[in-house]
Amino acid sequence: MTTFVYDFSHGDKDQRELLGGKGANLAEMTRLGLPVPPGFTITTQACRAYLAAGELPTELPEQVNEHLSALETAMNRKLGDEADPLLVSVRSGAKFSMPGMMDTVLNVGLTDATVSGLADQAGDERFAWDSYRRLIQMFGKTVLDMDGDRFEDAIHRAIEGEGVDTEVDLPVERLRTLVEEFKQLVRQHTGRDFPQDPRQQLWQTIEAVFGSWNSPRARLYRRTERIPDDLGTAVNVVGMVFGNLGPDSGTGVAFTRDPATGTRGAYGDYLPNAQGEDVVAGIRNTVPLTHLAELDSRSYQDLLHTMDVLEQHYRDLCDIEFTIERGRLWLLQTRVGKRTAAAAFIIAAALVEEGTINLDEALGRVTGEQLSRLMFPAFDLSDERPRLATGVAAAPGAAVGAAVFDSQRAVEIAESGTDVVLVRRETNPDDLPGMIAAQGILTSRGGKTSHAAVVARGMGTTCVCGADGITVSADSFTTVDGTTVREGDVISVDGETGAVYPGEVPVKPSPVVAYFETGEVPVGDPLVAAVDRLMRHADSAARLGVRANADTGEDSQRARRFGAVGIGLCRTEHMFLGDRRELVERLVLAEEDADREKVLAKLLEAQRADFVDILAAMDGLPVTIRLLDPPLHEFLPSLTDLEVAAATGSTDQRLLSAVRRMHEQNPMLGLRGVRLGLVIPGLYDMQVRAIGEAAGRLRAEGRDPRPEIMIPLVADAKELALTRASAQQILADIGVEAPIGTMIEVPRAAMTAAAIAEYADFFSFGTNDLTQMGWGFSRDDVEGSFFPRYLELGVFAVSPFAVLDTAGVGRLVEVAVTDGRASRSDLHLGVCGEHGGDPDSIRFFHHIGLDYVSCSPFRVPVARLAAGQAAVAESDSDSR
Amino acid sequence: MTTFVYDFSHGDKDQRELLGGKGANLAEMTRLGLPVPPGFTITTQACRAYLAAGELPTELPEQVNEHLSALETAMNRKLGDEADPLLVSVRSGAKFSMPGMMDTVLNVGLTDATVSGLADQAGDERFAWDSYRRLIQMFGKTVLDMDGDRFEDAIHRAIEGEGVDTEVDLPVERLRTLVEEFKQLVRQHTGRDFPQDPRQQLWQTIEAVFGSWNSPRARLYRRTERIPDDLGTAVNVVGMVFGNLGPDSGTGVAFTRDPATGTRGAYGDYLPNAQGEDVVAGIRNTVPLTHLAELDSRSYQDLLHTMDVLEQHYRDLCDIEFTIERGRLWLLQTRVGKRTAAAAFIIAAALVEEGTINLDEALGRVTGEQLSRLMFPAFDLSDERPRLATGVAAAPGAAVGAAVFDSQRAVEIAESGTDVVLVRRETNPDDLPGMIAAQGILTSRGGKTSHAAVVARGMGTTCVCGADGITVSADSFTTVDGTTVREGDVISVDGETGAVYPGEVPVKPSPVVAYFETGEVPVGDPLVAAVDRLMRHADSAARLGVRANADTGEDSQRARRFGAVGIGLCRTEHMFLGDRRELVERLVLAEEDADREKVLAKLLEAQRADFVDILAAMDGLPVTIRLLDPPLHEFLPSLTDLEVAAATGSTDQRLLSAVRRMHEQNPMLGLRGVRLGLVIPGLYDMQVRAIGEAAGRLRAEGRDPRPEIMIPLVADAKELALTRASAQQILADIGVEAPIGTMIEVPRAAMTAAAIAEYADFFSFGTNDLTQMGWGFSRDDVEGSFFPRYLELGVFAVSPFAVLDTAGVGRLVEVAVTDGRASRSDLHLGVCGEHGGDPDSIRFFHHIGLDYVSCSPFRVPVARLAAGQAAVAESDSDSR
Repeated sequence: MTTFVYDFSHGDKDQRELLGGKGANLAEMTRLGLPVPPGFTITTQACRAYLAAGELPTELPEQVNEHLSALETAMNRKLGDEADPLLVSVRSGAKFSMPGMMDTVLNVGLTDATVSGLADQAGDERFAWDSYRRLIQMFGKTVLDMDGDRFEDAIHRAIEGEGVDTEVDLPVERLRTLVEEFKQLVRQHTGRDFPQDPRQQLWQTIEAVFGSWNSPRARLYRRTERIPDDLGTAVNVVGMVFGNLGPDSGTGVAFTRDPATGTRGAYGDYLPNAQGEDVVAGIRNTVPLTHLAELDSRSYQDLLHTMDVLEQHYRDLCDIEFTIERGRLWLLQTRVGKRTAAAAFIIAAALVEEGTINLDEALGRVTGEQLSRLMFPAFDLSDERPRLATGVAAAPGAAVGAAVFDSQRAVEIAESGTDVVLVRRETNPDDLPGMIAAQGILTSRGGKTSHAAVVARGMGTTCVCGADGITVSADSFTTVDGTTVREGDVISVDGETGAVYPGEVPVKPSPVVAYFETGEVPVGDPLVAAVDRLMRHADSAARLGVRANADTGEDSQRARRFGAVGIGLCRTEHMFLGDRRELVERLVLAEEDADREKVLAKLLEAQRADFVDILAAMDGLPVTIRLLDPPLHEFLPSLTDLEVAAATGSTDQRLLSAVRRMHEQNPMLGLRGVRLGLVIPGLYDMQVRAIGEAAGRLRAEGRDPRPEIMIPLVADAKELALTRASAQQILADIGVEAPIGTMIEVPRAAMTAAAIAEYADFFSFGTNDLTQMGWGFSRDDVEGSFFPRYLELGVFAVSPFAVLDTAGVGRLVEVAVTDGRASRSDLHLGVCGEHGGDPDSIRFFHHIGLDYVSCSPFRVPVARLAAGQAAVAESDSDSR
Repeated sequence: MTTFVYDFSHGDKDQRELLGGKGANLAEMTRLGLPVPPGFTITTQACRAYLAAGELPTELPEQVNEHLSALETAMNRKLGDEADPLLVSVRSGAKFSMPGMMDTVLNVGLTDATVSGLADQAGDERFAWDSYRRLIQMFGKTVLDMDGDRFEDAIHRAIEGEGVDTEVDLPVERLRTLVEEFKQLVRQHTGRDFPQDPRQQLWQTIEAVFGSWNSPRARLYRRTERIPDDLGTAVNVVGMVFGNLGPDSGTGVAFTRDPATGTRGAYGDYLPNAQGEDVVAGIRNTVPLTHLAELDSRSYQDLLHTMDVLEQHYRDLCDIEFTIERGRLWLLQTRVGKRTAAAAFIIAAALVEEGTINLDEALGRVTGEQLSRLMFPAFDLSDERPRLATGVAAAPGAAVGAAVFDSQRAVEIAESGTDVVLVRRETNPDDLPGMIAAQGILTSRGGKTSHAAVVARGMGTTCVCGADGITVSADSFTTVDGTTVREGDVISVDGETGAVYPGEVPVKPSPVVAYFETGEVPVGDPLVAAVDRLMRHADSAARLGVRANADTGEDSQRARRFGAVGIGLCRTEHMFLGDRRELVERLVLAEEDADREKVLAKLLEAQRADFVDILAAMDGLPVTIRLLDPPLHEFLPSLTDLEVAAATGSTDQRLLSAVRRMHEQNPMLGLRGVRLGLVIPGLYDMQVRAIGEAAGRLRAEGRDPRPEIMIPLVADAKELALTRASAQQILADIGVEAPIGTMIEVPRAAMTAAAIAEYADFFSFGTNDLTQMGWGFSRDDVEGSFFPRYLELGVFAVSPFAVLDTAGVGRLVEVAVTDGRASRSDLHLGVCGEHGGDPDSIRFFHHIGLDYVSCSPFRVPVARLAAGQAAVAESDSDSR
C-alpha cells in the first residue's frame, strides 16, 4: 500500500519532492527538536493521484484518520469535541514556492457547536468568535472561491456601525452577528450551509489545495518560472497554535540575515495579538522584530537561539514564520530565504569566510542573473521616496525620462534629445518604434509574458508591467491616490524592483562594473570583495573559455578588461555601414569588373585599418573574424522608398531597376554570407587580404596578432572548401597563417558536420540563426507578433532566443559536435550566438564539450561565472 | 605489385569500374570470340594514382611495355619498325560515357621514319600519308590542346589550292606538304617538334587521357550528370585496323534495334574508305547500314551475326562501332545503346515477351524521367522539317509561340492572348516576368545549368538553351544560314530534342496520358502496351503507396484516374483566394469578436462545400486536409502598393496602418501555419468543423468519406497538442472521427519528432519547407539568384528542390522517422513535398520506410513506377 501521509517526525529537508518544501522543512525542524506544533503531511503523490483520477485515492481517508488520531493524542484534544475542540491549519506546500496556489486555511474544526468550547478553554470568548469568523472568511475565499470583498465589506460595515477603528475592537456580540452574516454569504454563494462537520471542512480544504495546483494563476506562474506541470503539491495539517490570544500572543517573520544586504543579525517583523493572515493583509502595522525583545524577552531569546540553530543547520540565510501563543514560541515554517542580488554574493562569501561552506558551494549560491543585475546602474534610494505605483519588474535597469503616451510622440521627443519613458495601457507591434526610442517602458496591464515585457527584455530596455492601480489615458496616467502624470512629467522606473517614482531619482553607477573595469576591490566594500572572490574561483574552475563579440578596437579593449580570452565574433558588416555603405552599394550594383575592383581597392585599405586596430587591442589572443554576412538588402536602399519616390517624382531608374531585381521576399533566406562571397567576385578575397596584411604589418612591428577567419552561413562542405582554398592561397601569398573555420548556423550544416569538418579548423555555432532556421521563424518578425501568445500558451516558457532550446536547436548542436569531432578530433568548438552569454545555455555548452563561448563584452563576467558554475556542478555530480 | 594493365583476353563486362565501360566491353567481346583487334587496357586505378601523385605510377612503364610486346607478337608488327610498323589507337573509357573527356587518338606509331613502311605494306602511299596527317591533327588537338581550326584551315587551303572537292581527293604530294604544314603548326604552338618516337607519342597520349578526366568540361558534365569525381578513366591501347584502305574498307555504327522506336533489326550508318573521326566530323555523308549488304555482303552477314550474339548476350539493345579492313570485319566497341523514352519501354516489354528478361529486370530498364517525357505533348514530326537551330534540351515539352526578345514585351503580348516564346542571349532575374508569361524559352548561350535552364525546369516551362550558331539581338535572331526571325514570327521549340523549328509545328497529345486517363490499351500500340505492362508490375511490386496533392474535386478525380490511392495533401489556402480573399482580409484585420465570427460563419459554409466535393471524389480513400498555412501577407494588400498609394493620393489609413503593423521582413519565417491557427481565434476551429460537417453529411448519404486533418508548420509538440485537443473536441461534438497528424517541415520538428509523435496519428514530411529551412534559403529568392552559380561551382549537382538532398534534409527526415516510430509504432508516414514525385527521392523514401508519397496528379504515374522500381531494387539487393 502506498504511504500517502507522513508525520512531521518522519521525513527531512531532502524530501521536498514528496513532502513539498514546507512539509520537508517542518519535518526537519521537528527532527532538530525545535518547537513545531504536531502535524502531518499528505504527499505530492496523493495530489498527483487525485489530479489524474479526479478523486482522492481510496487509501487516503484511512491514513489521514490514523494521523488525525495521533494528532489528537499529541494535542490532547479531539476534532469536533464541543468541550475542548482540536483545531488545525491546512497549508499547501509544493516542491517550489508557488504564489499562484491557494495557501492556508486556519482554524479548521470550528463550528457552531465547538466555538463555545474553544471560548471556554481559552477563557476568551472574543478570541473564539474572531477565530470562527476568520475560518469562514478564509474557507469561503479559498475553498469556495468566493469574492473576498464580500467578507471585507461586511467587516467594514460592522466597524462603521460600531464606530471603532479596526476589527480588533469589535465587541464580541458584533462578532457573533458577523459570523451569522458570513454564514449567510456562504449560503447565498453556494446554495448550501457552511459545513458544520469538522472533517468535512478538512476534506474540502484538502481537495481545494490539490485542485489549486491547476488554477490558471498557478499554471501561468509555473510557465514563467519553468516549473514542471506534473509535480503536484503536498498538504500540511498542523495543530493550531494561536497568535490572537491576547497581548502575550502574536505572529511574525524573521530572517537570520538582512535579505537586502546580507548582514548577519535578527531581521523581520512582528504583529502582536494576530494570526498570520493579518500580516499579509497589511491592515495593521507590524513592528520591527527587535521590539519583541521588549515585548517578550524570553520568547525573543528562544527565537534568536532557534535562528542560530537553523542558520548553522541550513548553512544559509533562513526565513522563519513563527507564532507566540501566550508567551510560548512555535515555529510554523522555515526555508532558505530569498535575498537581493547583492546579498546573495555577500552571504555566499561570508559563509566561506565563516568556514560554513567551501568555494564550490558558494558558487552555487549565486546566479548569473544576479551578477547581471548588479552590473546595471541602479537608483540611489538612500533617501526614502514615495512611489507612484509598483508593478512587475519585467526588464532590469533604471530608467528616467519624460512620460509619453504615444509611440510616435515618443520617437519625436526622443529625437529632440529628451529621454522618454513610454507609458501605455499595454503595447502592441504598432508601439515598436516608440519602445525602441524610449529609455524605459511602463504599462498598466500584463505581466512578465506581455508584449511589452517580451520585447523590452529582447531589446534590453528597462520595463515595468502591470503597475497596480494606475489608469492610463491617451495623454496621462492617474495613480490610486489620484496623482496625475501628464506628457513631459519626468518619472523614474525601476526595472529591479518594479517601483515607479515621480521625478528624477538619481542613478548611481554599478560598483561591480567599476571593479571589472579596473580589477580593484575598494577597501570596505563587502559586495565587490565577494564578487571578486567568487569570480576568481569561477575562473579557476571553468573549462569553457569566455570570448567576446566585438567589432572595434574599443570594444575589444573593454572585453579584454572584462576578462575575455579572445574575440569569438568580430562582425565585419558593421564596418561596411556609415560612409562605406555607399561603396558597398556600388560594389553590389557594379556591372563591370573595373568598377568592382576600384571599390574593392578602397575597401581593402579601410578594412585593413579596422583589423589592425582590433588585432592590436587583442595582441596575443585569438580574434575570430567573420567575413561579410548580412542580407543583401541591408546595403541597398529600401525598395518601398524607391517605389514611392518613383511614383511621386524623379528617381534613379537604374538604381530602382537594380533594387527591384535584387529584391528578396525573405532576405533572411536569401543571398547572404558565403553565398555573397561566392557570387560577388573578389569580396571575400579582399577581406582575407585585409586580415592577412593587417596581421603581417603587426607581426613586422614585433606584435603577436592571432586572427582566425570564419566563413558564415555555410550549408554544404563544398561552399567552405571553395572559400577556404581561395583564402589559403591569399594568406600564403602574404606569408601569414591563420586558422580557417566556419559558423554552424544553418540546420543542414549541423546535419552534415562530418563533411564540413574536413575543411574547418574550427566550428562556431551561430545559435541565433540556428534558432531562426531550426524553428522556422525570424526574430525580427515574431518576438512582437506571436511570442507573447506562445508564452501564454506555454509553447515555450521563455524565448528560445534568450535561452537555448536544448531539445531542438541544442540537439542540432550536439549532432554537429559529435560528428565534427569524429571527423576531425582537434576541431576547436565555440558558440557566438547571444546564447553564449546566457547561464542556462552555457551549462549546456559546457556539458556537450564546447571549448568556448563568446558573448557581448558586458556579458563576459556573467559568462565567466556561469562557466565556472557549470564545471563545479559537473564535478559535483561526477563525485556523487 | 598492383596490376595496372589487363589484356583484352582477361576481364569481362562486369569490370567497368576498373577497366572502364569501353575496356570491359572489348574484353567481353574478346571472351565471346568476336573479332576484336588485340589490345590491352590501362586501368582506372592507374589514372587515379596518376591524378593523386601528379605522375604515372612507377610500375606502369614496365607493365605497358610487356603488353606492348605481346601486342606486337599478336599483330606480327613492331612499334617504330621502319619496314612494317605497328600502329595503335589510344581510346579513353571511363565507367560512365563522358563527352567532356578527350576520346581517341588513332594511328599512334606513325613518324617520318615509319610512314613509308606503312605505305609499302599497304601498297598505298596516299593512305599512309593520310593516316599520318590524321595522327598529327588528332594529337595536336587532343594531346597538345591546339585549336582544331588551324588544322582545318590548312586542309581547306590545300583543297582550294588543288581545286578538289574534299580532302579524300588531295593528291599524295599535297598530303606530304600538308603533313609538313601540320608539323610546323605543332612547332609554333609548343615550341617543340612533333614527337618522332612512337613510345613518346603513346605516353604523351596516355597522360593526356588521364589528365582530361579533370578538364573543366568533364567536371561540368560529371556535375550535371552526378557522376562521382573520383572514378578516373581507363585507357585502351588497340592494334590499328584501317577503314581508310580503299573502297573495300570502311567504318560504321550499328544498332541491334531502332533506338527511336525499339523495333528489332539492323540500324545504323556506314562510311566507306574512312576512319572513325570522319563519321563524327560529318564531312562526308554516311549511307544507311543496310547498304553494306550490297557493298560487302560477307562482312554484312558477319555483322548481323555479331549483332545477334551481342543482343542475346547483353540481353538489350546494343550499339556497335566497327571497321571493315579490306573485307574483314573488326569490332571496335559495343555498349548497351542509348534510346528514346518510347523505345526504352517498348524494348523492355519486348525482351520480356521474348523471354530474355523478367518483369523485375524490365522495370529496371526504364526510368521515371522517360515516363514523364512520354506524358508531355510532343511535336508531330511525321513530315521532315528543316530546323532553324539545335540547342541543349534543357526543360521538356513542346512550345509554339511568337518569338519575343524582351521580358516586358513578352508579358504584354502574352496578356493580349498570344502565346510567346521568349528568346534571349541568356536570361537573368530581370527576365523572370517574361519567363513566367512565355510558353517556351530559347537562349543562344549557356547549358543545362544556366539561369534559363534552372528557372525553366523549376517552373515546368519548355526550354532550349545554347542554340548553336544563332545570333540574338534586341529584336531578332539570325541563324547560321542567315535566316532572320523577328518579333511576332512564330517558332516551335522542342524541349525533348533541343530542335528549333520555324512556324507552328503541330502538337499531338500524349497517347500515354490518354492511357492513364482511360485505362485503355489501343490495339497495335506497342508503346502503350509496354507502359501498361510495366505499370501493372510496378504497382504489384511497390510497397510505397502513391497519393496525390489536389485541392479540388476535379483534380482529385484526375488523380484517382491516374492511380492515386488517396489525397496526401489538400491545401486549403487556395480555397481562400479569389472571392473569399476579401473575407480573409476582414478576418485578419478584425478587431472585434463579432466581426470575426460573422466572417467565420460565411467561410464555414464555403469550406464545407469545398470538402464535400473532394471527399466525394475520393470516396473510400483517405484525404489529408492541411489546415490553413500560407504567410499572412498573402491575404493582405502589398505594403509597397499601399505606401505608393498613400504618397500619391488617398488611401485607407486604417488598412495601411494594419498592413504596416503586420508587415513581415521574412514572411516565410513569420506568422504562418499553426501559428496563425493559434493566434487567430476560431480560424482552425472553423476549418475542422467544415471538414467534420462535410464528412458527416456524406456519411449520412451512405458514402465513405475518409478525411485526415493535418496541422502545418508545427515546430513543438505543444503546438500540436493544443490544436489537436480543440479539433478532437469539435469532431466529437459533430460525431465524426478523423486521424489528426502534422506536417514535419520545420527542422526542429524533425529533431523533436519523438515528442511530437505523442500527439500525431501521422507525419507528412513537407520536404519543400524542410529544404528551405534546412538549407536556409527560400526557393522564391534563390533559384534565380545564386543557384546557377552554385550548380556551376558544383555545390550541388541539381537543385535540392528537385531532388531530395539526402545527406542533409534526408537525414532530418530519417531522424524523424526513427524517433517518431520509436515513440509511436503505428505512426503513419508520408511525404507531400514536390520530392514525392521525383524518382531518386522516392527511392530514398522507400529505403527509409515511409508508407506513402504524394505528388501532383500528373506525376502520380511516375511515382507509381518509381515506387515499384524501389521495391524491386531493394529485393534484388537483398537477394544478393
